[in-house]
Amino acid sequence: MERVRRLFDDTLFSDFPFVNALCEHVRGYRGKMLRPALLLLSGRAAGGLADEHIALAVVVEMIHLATLLHDDVLDGAEVRRKRQTVNVLQGNETAVLLGDYLVSHAYHLCGRLGSRFAVCRIGATTNTVCEGELMQIHHRGNCRLTEAEYFEIITRKTAALTAVCGELGAHFAGAPQEQVAALEAYGRHAGIAFQIVDDVLDLIGSTETMGKTLGRDLDLGKPTLPLIHCLSSGDTAAAAQLAAVLGNGLTASASEVCAWLDRTGSVAYAMQRAADHVMRAVAHLEAFPPGPARDSLAGIAHFIAFRQQ
Amino acid sequence: MERVRRLFDDTLFSDFPFVNALCEHVRGYRGKMLRPALLLLSGRAAGGLADEHIALAVVVEMIHLATLLHDDVLDGAEVRRKRQTVNVLQGNETAVLLGDYLVSHAYHLCGRLGSRFAVCRIGATTNTVCEGELMQIHHRGNCRLTEAEYFEIITRKTAALTAVCGELGAHFAGAPQEQVAALEAYGRHAGIAFQIVDDVLDLIGSTETMGKTLGRDLDLGKPTLPLIHCLSSGDTAAAAQLAAVLGNGLTASASEVCAWLDRTGSVAYAMQRAADHVMRAVAHLEAFPPGPARDSLAGIAHFIAFRQQ
Repeated sequence: MERVRRLFDDTLFSDFPFVNALCEHVRGYRGKMLRPALLLLSGRAAGGLADEHIALAVVVEMIHLATLLHDDVLDGAEVRRKRQTVNVLQGNETAVLLGDYLVSHAYHLCGRLGSRFAVCRIGATTNTVCEGELMQIHHRGNCRLTEAEYFEIITRKTAALTAVCGELGAHFAGAPQEQVAALEAYGRHAGIAFQIVDDVLDLIGSTETMGKTLGRDLDLGKPTLPLIHCLSSGDTAAAAQLAAVLGNGLTASASEVCAWLDRTGSVAYAMQRAADHVMRAVAHLEAFPPGPARDSLAGIAHFIAFRQQ
Repeated sequence: MERVRRLFDDTLFSDFPFVNALCEHVRGYRGKMLRPALLLLSGRAAGGLADEHIALAVVVEMIHLATLLHDDVLDGAEVRRKRQTVNVLQGNETAVLLGDYLVSHAYHLCGRLGSRFAVCRIGATTNTVCEGELMQIHHRGNCRLTEAEYFEIITRKTAALTAVCGELGAHFAGAPQEQVAALEAYGRHAGIAFQIVDDVLDLIGSTETMGKTLGRDLDLGKPTLPLIHCLSSGDTAAAAQLAAVLGNGLTASASEVCAWLDRTGSVAYAMQRAADHVMRAVAHLEAFPPGPARDSLAGIAHFIAFRQQ
């Protein structure tokens, strides 16, 4: 992980001091480095690490941070990892361009590996992520979004990147095709679980613990899993009030929303779906011999479902 | 060019109809397709076209359109190629994500060629373009920007992409290194000239002819070449008034600004600098035997300096 951090910093180094100052701020967003961890542990579990793993771990983290920068602009978010967001500090323009700068460096670093496979997989993944994000915006305020459509969105916008971490980790460890597919599936299910929990925490988490602006999904009319469940529950009073908030931009306090979701058991339902995907992720690890890397991957999947931040 | 248009459309095709509707709108921005033309003509002049040229022509156009989409968000522009901009029609969020979608597809298409050289050159170019854009934002409202700094900005944000068109065009035609360098230099000087004229037209052009929102540079405090010249001219009255507009966000009518620039001969000065770069671009074509491709490249360079749109 230390090598990942160092390569990350070296790759972004610019001749311009003001660009370096911006990148310094972005480094503060790195936090858990979940995606590099998935990629490196997948490599370990599937046979061992090569230099490509370090570079690709940096690539996926840069892509992830770029999506955060652009997301914060789209969502008008003010706090991220307990720091002010770039859009608030420096304006939306800088935040958009800094995201572009990170993506560009990610592709360039990936290209330098000279692996057609890596470049194509990363490119196809970002294609999918963008489609997921566009689909999400397209369905803002849509009170009739189905669960299937919700899963389509989060599989694209979040799980595609965690899936490619497993896939690239295994591929560059020289693992056989079944193991590559198993870690790709592990990453996809872990990513789906992660996003469900993220969406739940946006509704019921505390800004202090999470260290980022919460409650934005509802303000922006994003129908996430607990909301979809509540809307289609038999509780027509709760559903009608929620639909007014989601579809027509009415406001409601966090405690009102929590009360509606509580009555319909919608948070518990969403958390159960997240737990299902954690189980499916962990089941794909059976394809590997027991050991510390496999244990850590299982541990990460469980952490995802039970985290408070 | 027909093959370029077809591959462009095929590459962006999505399973989601709303994504295709957005891409349909973006196609309307393609206009002159200057960068694909530079790349294909460079290939022709340097030995002939291969399949890579078609794909790379699409790649550079997608990257260019993505920068337009993000620029229009940054500039708050309302009209582009006589159509409403995506940010106005669909909101800034969609415009940012659609730009990301185009960039992602550009890298993916480039990666599919299996050429480390192409991926690295495109990645390095977008790194440079982003730095140029960040530098430009950093210097908003800076009345003391030097000509050298202005040229550094436009060389990065605009000329890096036209330079790589010449370079990739020649490289994939199998041209010797001197010819690759000559077309890279041709593209760089043509790009510099293009941006100078673009900046002049933003100040003195007509929205009707240009088909896009004008006067934004001054509103946004961007010190472009005619303004830099006027500020450092001996005419202290004109300079002081201009500095108030540029640095403090005061407003001035287009005719007032034109009068100041007229008195100091600043537009003529900038156009002369553009003409110098056109001459330097054309001089690099001497490395090639006469013929229709070389003639067209020379013609494009001249068109750049004398265009009204």
